[in-house]
Amino acid sequence: MREHDLIAELREIVGAPQDILSGGGVRVGIGDDCALLSLPEGVDLLVTTDSQREGVHFRRDWFDPVAIGRRLVTVNVSDVASKGGSPAWAVVAAGLPAGMDPEFLKGVYRGISEASRRYGITIVGGDISRDPGGLSLVMTLMGTTPRGTFVGRGGLSPGDAVYLLGRPGRSRAGYLSLAKKIATSPLETAREAFREPRALLGEGKLLVRRPEVCAMTDTSDGLERSLTEMGRASGVAIVVEEIPVSAEIELWASFLGENPGDLVWQGGEDYDLVVGVSEREEKAFVSWAREELLRDSPEGLFRIGHAVSEKEAVLNFAKGLERLADGRGGFEHTI
Amino acid sequence: MREHDLIAELREIVGAPQDILSGGGVRVGIGDDCALLSLPEGVDLLVTTDSQREGVHFRRDWFDPVAIGRRLVTVNVSDVASKGGSPAWAVVAAGLPAGMDPEFLKGVYRGISEASRRYGITIVGGDISRDPGGLSLVMTLMGTTPRGTFVGRGGLSPGDAVYLLGRPGRSRAGYLSLAKKIATSPLETAREAFREPRALLGEGKLLVRRPEVCAMTDTSDGLERSLTEMGRASGVAIVVEEIPVSAEIELWASFLGENPGDLVWQGGEDYDLVVGVSEREEKAFVSWAREELLRDSPEGLFRIGHAVSEKEAVLNFAKGLERLADGRGGFEHTI
Repeated sequence: MREHDLIAELREIVGAPQDILSGGGVRVGIGDDCALLSLPEGVDLLVTTDSQREGVHFRRDWFDPVAIGRRLVTVNVSDVASKGGSPAWAVVAAGLPAGMDPEFLKGVYRGISEASRRYGITIVGGDISRDPGGLSLVMTLMGTTPRGTFVGRGGLSPGDAVYLLGRPGRSRAGYLSLAKKIATSPLETAREAFREPRALLGEGKLLVRRPEVCAMTDTSDGLERSLTEMGRASGVAIVVEEIPVSAEIELWASFLGENPGDLVWQGGEDYDLVVGVSEREEKAFVSWAREELLRDSPEGLFRIGHAVSEKEAVLNFAKGLERLADGRGGFEHTI
Repeated sequence: MREHDLIAELREIVGAPQDILSGGGVRVGIGDDCALLSLPEGVDLLVTTDSQREGVHFRRDWFDPVAIGRRLVTVNVSDVASKGGSPAWAVVAAGLPAGMDPEFLKGVYRGISEASRRYGITIVGGDISRDPGGLSLVMTLMGTTPRGTFVGRGGLSPGDAVYLLGRPGRSRAGYLSLAKKIATSPLETAREAFREPRALLGEGKLLVRRPEVCAMTDTSDGLERSLTEMGRASGVAIVVEEIPVSAEIELWASFLGENPGDLVWQGGEDYDLVVGVSEREEKAFVSWAREELLRDSPEGLFRIGHAVSEKEAVLNFAKGLERLADGRGGFEHTI
C-alpha cells in the first residue's frame, strides 16, 4: 500500500463528522497545515503529551492493535483527569517501522478513534513517518478547564494529608503475568488492567471542585514517583504511612511469587490519582468522598501519608515500611 | 546518567524564566501533569505536529545536535507560518535509543531552546522515553491567529493563480551533496539549506492579511505534493506552467549530476510557501509583493500555474513540462 493511500485511510478512521467538529470548537480539523480551534470564553487550555512505544510500553504479541490505540488515548486522558479538565482535541504522530502491517496499524487507529470518542476528544491532526525502530506513537492532548480551577502537583503544605484514589498494583501484576508467562485465570483481570487501563476522568473533575483538595497528580509512573514529584513540587517531605494492598493484589502476588507491597509501591501505569487534602478539612473530604465520590465505584480511597516540613523534599517511611526506601526512584518501563 | 537527572537537565535547558512564562500566557509550564495556557481574547488556536527521526530526517554524522533541535522547531513553525499565525507554545516528545550520549541529547535540546526563543515559542511540556530505534523527536506546536484570518489549503477557485514564495530545490541539493559525498565548496550553501531550513514566518503573516490571497500551504514535502494537496482540498485541477529554476540550482545540479528541474519539483524540506491568488486581483498582489514582501528579501516569487475546473483534482502540465507527471507523488524522506 502506498504511503499516501494509507494516510488517507487512517484519516478516515480517526476523522470526525462535520457536526462533531463544529460543535466541539473545531474550525479546521485534519487535512490542513494546522488545525484551527476556538476555545469557549472563560476557559484555559490544558496540554499534555505522552507516548506508547513498541518494546517499551507494549509488545505486539501481548496486545491487540485496538488496545494499543486505546491505551495511547487513556494515558494522555489521565493527565487531563489529574487536573480536573475536559479532554477536547488531540494530534497523533506515528513512526512506522519498515514492513509495518497496514491492517495492524489501522487497528491501532481504530482504537485511538474509539477511545477518543468515549472521552470526548476530536482528533484534529497528525504526522506519519517511517521510523527505523518499532511502532512509535505520540499523542498530544489538549483539554479545557474553567479558569481558576487548576490544581497542580505543588499545593501540599506541611500537615496536609495525601490520599490515593484507585487500585494500585494491578497493572504491574498484569505485566508480570505476561512477562513471567503465568497465565492463571484469576490473573486475567490483572492483564486486562495492564492492557486496558482506565483514566479517572469523572473523579478528577469532581475532586478539583472540592475546596479540601490542594494538590493532585496521577500515578502513570507509579506511586513512589508520584509522591516524590508531589513532594518536590510542593517543597515538603512526605511521610508514607501506609501502602494499600488489596486482597486482590495479595492473591495475584502469591500466584506471581512477588511481594504484594512491591507491586503497589514500585508498579506503574495504574493511572490512579494522588490527592493532597488540606489538614483542617480532611474529615469533610473523607465523608464527601464516601458518600459521593465512591458511590457505586470500584475504586478505593486510601490515606497514604502526610506532608511534613523538611529541608529536602524526600519520602520518609513510617515504621515497618522502611525497606521501601531503596532509592530505586520509582517505576521505569520494563518491557 | 540516571534517567531522572537527565530529564531534569533537559528541562533546565528548554525551560523559560518566569517572566517569559507569565508574559506569554503560560500559567503553568513544564513540570506538572499538564501545562495550563491562557489565550488572549479574539484569537483562535493553531495546532500542528511534526517529527524529526534519525535515519529518516537526519543522520547524526551529517548534523550538529544543535541543528537537529533547531530543525525540529523550524519544520513546525513553517506550518504555523503557512496559516499566517504566531507560534506560541510547544511540547516535545523524545524517544531515546539505548546508549544515547547525554551530551548529544543536551545539544539537541539546546537547539530546540534556541530556535524556540527566536520564533517566540515557550516550551511548556514534554515526554521522554526509551525507544528501540534511533533518536526520535516529535514536537506539537500551538500558535495563535486573530479570529477570521485563517487561510486554508482549500481556497482556490478555477482561474486563480498559484505562486511560490521561496527558493525551491535548495534543500534537496544539500541532501544530495551529502548523500553522494560531493563536497564542492559552492554546495556548502545547499548543505546549509538542508541542515538549517528557515520558516517564512514574517512573510506568512503579511500574506494572510492580503485580500488577494485565497489559499496557502508550505512545501515541507515538496512542490509536487503541495500543489496536489492544494488542488485536492480546493476541488480544482492545477495547470503547472513553470518550474522555477534559479541560477544557483542550475549550478548545483551540474555539480551533482542532476536535472535542475527535478531538484525543484521532486525536492522537499524547503519550507517555501505556495500561495493562491484570486484571479481578478493578481496584478495588485504582484505589485504589493514586489514593493513590500520582497523588499530586502533573499526569497523569490514565481507564478507556478493556475487552477482549472476539472472532475478530478489532478496536476496538468503546460507544454515542455509533461515529463514531470510520472506519478511519483512527491517527495518522501530518503535518508
